[in-house]
Amino acid sequence: MANLENIRIVLVGPLYGGNVGSICRAMANMGLSELVLVAPSENLNLAEARMMAVAAGDIFEKRRVVATLEEAVGDCGLVMGTTVRPGLYRQHVKTPRDWAPAILASAAVNPVALVYGRENSGLTNEELAICTNLIQIPSSPDYASLNLAQAVMVCIYELYVASGTFELPVEKSSECLTATREQMFKMWREMLLDIGFMNDEKSDHMMLGIRRILSRAPLTTDDVNILMGIARQMTWKSRQKDNLQ
Amino acid sequence: MANLENIRIVLVGPLYGGNVGSICRAMANMGLSELVLVAPSENLNLAEARMMAVAAGDIFEKRRVVATLEEAVGDCGLVMGTTVRPGLYRQHVKTPRDWAPAILASAAVNPVALVYGRENSGLTNEELAICTNLIQIPSSPDYASLNLAQAVMVCIYELYVASGTFELPVEKSSECLTATREQMFKMWREMLLDIGFMNDEKSDHMMLGIRRILSRAPLTTDDVNILMGIARQMTWKSRQKDNLQ
Repeated sequence: MANLENIRIVLVGPLYGGNVGSICRAMANMGLSELVLVAPSENLNLAEARMMAVAAGDIFEKRRVVATLEEAVGDCGLVMGTTVRPGLYRQHVKTPRDWAPAILASAAVNPVALVYGRENSGLTNEELAICTNLIQIPSSPDYASLNLAQAVMVCIYELYVASGTFELPVEKSSECLTATREQMFKMWREMLLDIGFMNDEKSDHMMLGIRRILSRAPLTTDDVNILMGIARQMTWKSRQKDNLQ
Repeated sequence: MANLENIRIVLVGPLYGGNVGSICRAMANMGLSELVLVAPSENLNLAEARMMAVAAGDIFEKRRVVATLEEAVGDCGLVMGTTVRPGLYRQHVKTPRDWAPAILASAAVNPVALVYGRENSGLTNEELAICTNLIQIPSSPDYASLNLAQAVMVCIYELYVASGTFELPVEKSSECLTATREQMFKMWREMLLDIGFMNDEKSDHMMLGIRRILSRAPLTTDDVNILMGIARQMTWKSRQKDNLQ
């Protein structure tokens, strides 16, 4: 989707290759592809990055490396900073879910940057000042600080969901029609009488229980065919035994 | 929050300590604490797990290790399996966001298990059959498979958000009252006339532009005080210069 492709992940001073690689994979999972590293650590473990990127190695190989945040976001409209600490510049924060529609709308016009700070110290006040808006990820006050790759994942997952591109797999078998379902209950009633599970007097009450169990979630036509097959076979077996006696 | 504490993360056959540690941290971030490993790899790197858990090492140390999935979930009501592949047993899948309310409601009564498969092969059909429901995380069809720790994070982040426990920090300064804002615009008008930025004839039109710029987002009382201070100082400076000439 075009809007997602126009969203850039900017990592300021990343220390660990594993995180950078995990972020590449997360980006591929959520339809993003543009990664910029600002002054990454000289000790960034490239082998670890490639290992954690798994099948998203192309995003890592195409990464851009620049010296300053200004260079990384000069051509962007919205520049979204992430922070876990309240304080100066940090009053107008919203959650990733709240920001998602505005980010996608802006990405239809200009590149949008999502900016993440160093693993150990986040973004400086100077870097936060360059950001046009701030994101705070909901997390427990007892341990608010997310791993860098996890923080990126939560934000871009929200963008992917908000983009509306994802659809759950379609049911192979649609919800069963009432007439078929009632036919199935009729067969079960006969079968349960036949095998002596209930007598005629108790049957209405018992069938309410059976209906309750089998109606708690929607039944597909496939489901009902299986249930009718059981009733049919059980009835046949039960009568066969009676005939043998 | 009690409901979150009743949600158990069950990892079946995990291979990598780094993932297990990252999951401990994610759990602490999202208010969970109970981790069960089913037949973990004998080569699971414990040091790596402790390193990636960072401040959530207590969750890792308190982990329970069992031999089978049945043991891990025997006392649970809902057992949610995660899968990326459609197929047998996989028709009734929903997203983590769709499932979240039902999971939280069930966790108020019985423990709920979220079950995740091996990094390389997921859950077997036998393991999926034990699950009462299935979760599929929205992801790009081009690279649908998330890292294990990322998959856990997305699910429990959705639960944390749905639990309603998180609140954004309150604005220190509330939205400015209209009377104060209008006073500020009056001061800016006088100042912009004073310094010769505009003349009287153009001033109404120009002030509409200024209003548009300053009204695009809500202004707090603090913001308006800063803007009034600028106008006041500029007017003073401008008149001082005029007096010196």
